[in-house]
Amino acid sequence: MHKQTLKLRRVAIDTYHENVAYLHRECEVYRAEGFQALSKIKISANGSKILAVLNVVDDDAIVTPLELGLSEQAYHQLNADDQCQVCVDHAEYPASMDAVRRKISGERLTLEDFTSIVDDIAESRYSKMEMAAFLVASGQNSLDRDEVYFLTRAMLQSGQRLNWAEPLVADKHCIGGIPGNRTSMLVVPIVAAHGMLIPKTSSRAITSPAGTADSMEILATVNLTPGKLHDIVRKQRGCLAWGGTARLAPVDDMLISVERPLGIDSQGQMVASILSKKLAAGSTHLLIDIPVGPTAKVRHMRQALSLRKLFEFVGDQLNIHLEVIITDGRQPIGRGIGPTLEARDVMMVLENNPKAPEDLRQKSLVLAGRIIEFDPDVRGGSGYAIARDILDSGRALEKMNDIIRAQGARSFDFTPGMHSLEVKASRTGTVTAIDNLHMAKIARMAGAPIDKKAGVDLIRKTGDAVSKGEGIYRIHAEFISDFEFAKNLVAQKDGYTIGNEEDVNRHDGFL
Amino acid sequence: MHKQTLKLRRVAIDTYHENVAYLHRECEVYRAEGFQALSKIKISANGSKILAVLNVVDDDAIVTPLELGLSEQAYHQLNADDQCQVCVDHAEYPASMDAVRRKISGERLTLEDFTSIVDDIAESRYSKMEMAAFLVASGQNSLDRDEVYFLTRAMLQSGQRLNWAEPLVADKHCIGGIPGNRTSMLVVPIVAAHGMLIPKTSSRAITSPAGTADSMEILATVNLTPGKLHDIVRKQRGCLAWGGTARLAPVDDMLISVERPLGIDSQGQMVASILSKKLAAGSTHLLIDIPVGPTAKVRHMRQALSLRKLFEFVGDQLNIHLEVIITDGRQPIGRGIGPTLEARDVMMVLENNPKAPEDLRQKSLVLAGRIIEFDPDVRGGSGYAIARDILDSGRALEKMNDIIRAQGARSFDFTPGMHSLEVKASRTGTVTAIDNLHMAKIARMAGAPIDKKAGVDLIRKTGDAVSKGEGIYRIHAEFISDFEFAKNLVAQKDGYTIGNEEDVNRHDGFL
Repeated sequence: MHKQTLKLRRVAIDTYHENVAYLHRECEVYRAEGFQALSKIKISANGSKILAVLNVVDDDAIVTPLELGLSEQAYHQLNADDQCQVCVDHAEYPASMDAVRRKISGERLTLEDFTSIVDDIAESRYSKMEMAAFLVASGQNSLDRDEVYFLTRAMLQSGQRLNWAEPLVADKHCIGGIPGNRTSMLVVPIVAAHGMLIPKTSSRAITSPAGTADSMEILATVNLTPGKLHDIVRKQRGCLAWGGTARLAPVDDMLISVERPLGIDSQGQMVASILSKKLAAGSTHLLIDIPVGPTAKVRHMRQALSLRKLFEFVGDQLNIHLEVIITDGRQPIGRGIGPTLEARDVMMVLENNPKAPEDLRQKSLVLAGRIIEFDPDVRGGSGYAIARDILDSGRALEKMNDIIRAQGARSFDFTPGMHSLEVKASRTGTVTAIDNLHMAKIARMAGAPIDKKAGVDLIRKTGDAVSKGEGIYRIHAEFISDFEFAKNLVAQKDGYTIGNEEDVNRHDGFL
Repeated sequence: MHKQTLKLRRVAIDTYHENVAYLHRECEVYRAEGFQALSKIKISANGSKILAVLNVVDDDAIVTPLELGLSEQAYHQLNADDQCQVCVDHAEYPASMDAVRRKISGERLTLEDFTSIVDDIAESRYSKMEMAAFLVASGQNSLDRDEVYFLTRAMLQSGQRLNWAEPLVADKHCIGGIPGNRTSMLVVPIVAAHGMLIPKTSSRAITSPAGTADSMEILATVNLTPGKLHDIVRKQRGCLAWGGTARLAPVDDMLISVERPLGIDSQGQMVASILSKKLAAGSTHLLIDIPVGPTAKVRHMRQALSLRKLFEFVGDQLNIHLEVIITDGRQPIGRGIGPTLEARDVMMVLENNPKAPEDLRQKSLVLAGRIIEFDPDVRGGSGYAIARDILDSGRALEKMNDIIRAQGARSFDFTPGMHSLEVKASRTGTVTAIDNLHMAKIARMAGAPIDKKAGVDLIRKTGDAVSKGEGIYRIHAEFISDFEFAKNLVAQKDGYTIGNEEDVNRHDGFL
């Protein structure tokens, strides 16, 4: 009897959240083309099994006819030794695709359905196509609020959960979409200096020019082991760490890797994503920031209100104390966009530098004040003043420096990328609008967040007077190809609207 | 100024209907990781442009830091010389994804929307994820009949269209799902022998164990140039060719490559797919076969009727004479399942071999009779008798041999695959049901359609008496690994139900 095994080979291709297997067209054991139309195969070695999309190879330098190649992701997931013997089999559909097909037909799914879907995704049994099918089927408003609760619970159960063994674990989260909005790096030191526990774990940017983890990484190590994280939080009452090492709600990251490139957004997915992550991080008291503005994720107050209700409903079911704050999302916050430039703005605020961006300072104080009022010993309405005292007295800066040292200080300077262009005002007048999406895209094209020093530095903001030819912002890049991409984008559109003073929409009564 | 180009390299990886580009992580011109989260990049060379999904490579043997690799599909689409200089840029979303997002929100789309979606897919601007999003959004019954008509028109416009310059160009199409249902190979010679034009272009199997093109290829060349196709049809009045070379409604094939692995089926997509292909092939008179049965694609008569109405509506809009026939789809047709075994059944019927499968003969005569009645000179109701005379007299066999010679006869024998297993009845009784899906899957596992001689040969059919231990069917495989896959599947379930004679559902009054 023929032995149906192939030798495992690691293929140094990074297929980004999708398992890919490489089989030679002339494979001596399996008929590569017979598998291909069915798209997925099952690979087993020493009791470990994975599913992978099949690519057929005609080059022995990649895999020989006696080998099975696995992309980096697939290789790590299989967790077997290079050169070991592997078996290949036809893959069955993930069982939960049946529930996805029922959702496509408009059925309501149960907790068990969502649990089986999330488990299959967690085990990498879904291809990107299948994840897209699930996201589209549960997109827009096709999940009712009970289904959002079920999905949140299923995502929460799929990963690790941190336990801080304290009755009040504070956290904050912004739904995103506003460049420069680096408030966490101010809120955490203020709240921790007040003595409340605020163990903040953040993500890196996925499609935005910087996440909190990317900016914090300018100042300190953010990649901390769970043991070190606990030590720091116990001593400092707060941290600003990357959440990736803790495997909190891992399915969320996988869904986001499909959802973002598709550009589909759904309130239900967003709520489940945020709440499962925060509950997994052990939070008991959570402040959610929903910025509203014409180029923000949420564009109308009524949409912000319905999102707030959904957060509240699911939060109540899951027994987390949750408050929602609706903020002004009409333009970027602060001046810098990109990891280094945003870290610079944060440090200027902490240092009470008179040139620090006032909007970043004000917003952070409001958010910190709301969190401080979670403290049962704080009188309602006095949180803002407490936060301001902590910041003005330098105690917030001191706490930030303690956290930086505890996590591991990095040597840094705030010099932005060497390739630089000052973009000029196209006319004389008043800046009446700045497009969040476009400014984020320019910073992204310039290389942020991969190039820490790349990004955009705003010179003028909404309401400012400008003369034709005066600088409105600067682009910074480290890599010439990225600098060209950013310049080409600005040449198409600079993202600023300049008009008459009376056109500035001044009802900034959001806060 | 740095020159932002890379050297093109063909990477011998077959990524099956998806463009993939390979960029070295240490690429000296572009920041590979900066592109990756956004998933797609634009590649240009000498005025030609393609979009591709990006994979990041860490092995110089695949691509060096100065090269850009393209998978086979992408390389062919770019159509540039190996080693030529290429530029990379950020890819914009395909503009029509906006329409897909509107469909996800439940909007009705216009002809212009469908045209832009189909054009973007035709130009490979959609990733598989994006195609999945479109399919799910327009799946189930979310397309109304006008939208199905728009989609059909858009798909028709996206490819070539054959013109036979005759007023009556007959064609037939079965919606599929019934193994062994190789009626086209009988209908074409009968109808062509009657003198009607029937230029049949067929597909190869995608997820079934054999398509008409796969079976016909046992006997003759099916891969014909458009010129040769026209010559043969003019002389023989018919052909049995593979439709792939003619680039008829190419988007259909791309959508099917995503739809089938996802297991999502939609009436609207099916109607648009079939009608666009048939209209592109130049048909003026079309007979559609809808088999109904518990393991067929259509499981209830009411579903068959609503599908018939949809075919009729869209056919009328597009000015094709269309008739629908609802047939018995409760078990496989004929005895063989797999290219060689099905070709053998067909030739036995043509040769009037008394052992030829009677159900395949009867069904083919009924279909051929209905098509012959498209002939204005044929009296209503006399088509069946004409078809039978043509078959019984040997004229159909003669025509088939003419067509085989014209296309290019291949030497063949009908010996099935050497690895063979006779599956035995698990009890004594009467065969009450045979599972179409399961028999197709067994044949597929055994290696069909890639291995022409692989498949299943049925010994007993519904209504036949069997004793425990008697053979009910044989599996044939050429490759030992496939033989094992098929045997493992049969060990789980053999696909036959054996019960009492009175349990056989005898209302075969479909025809």
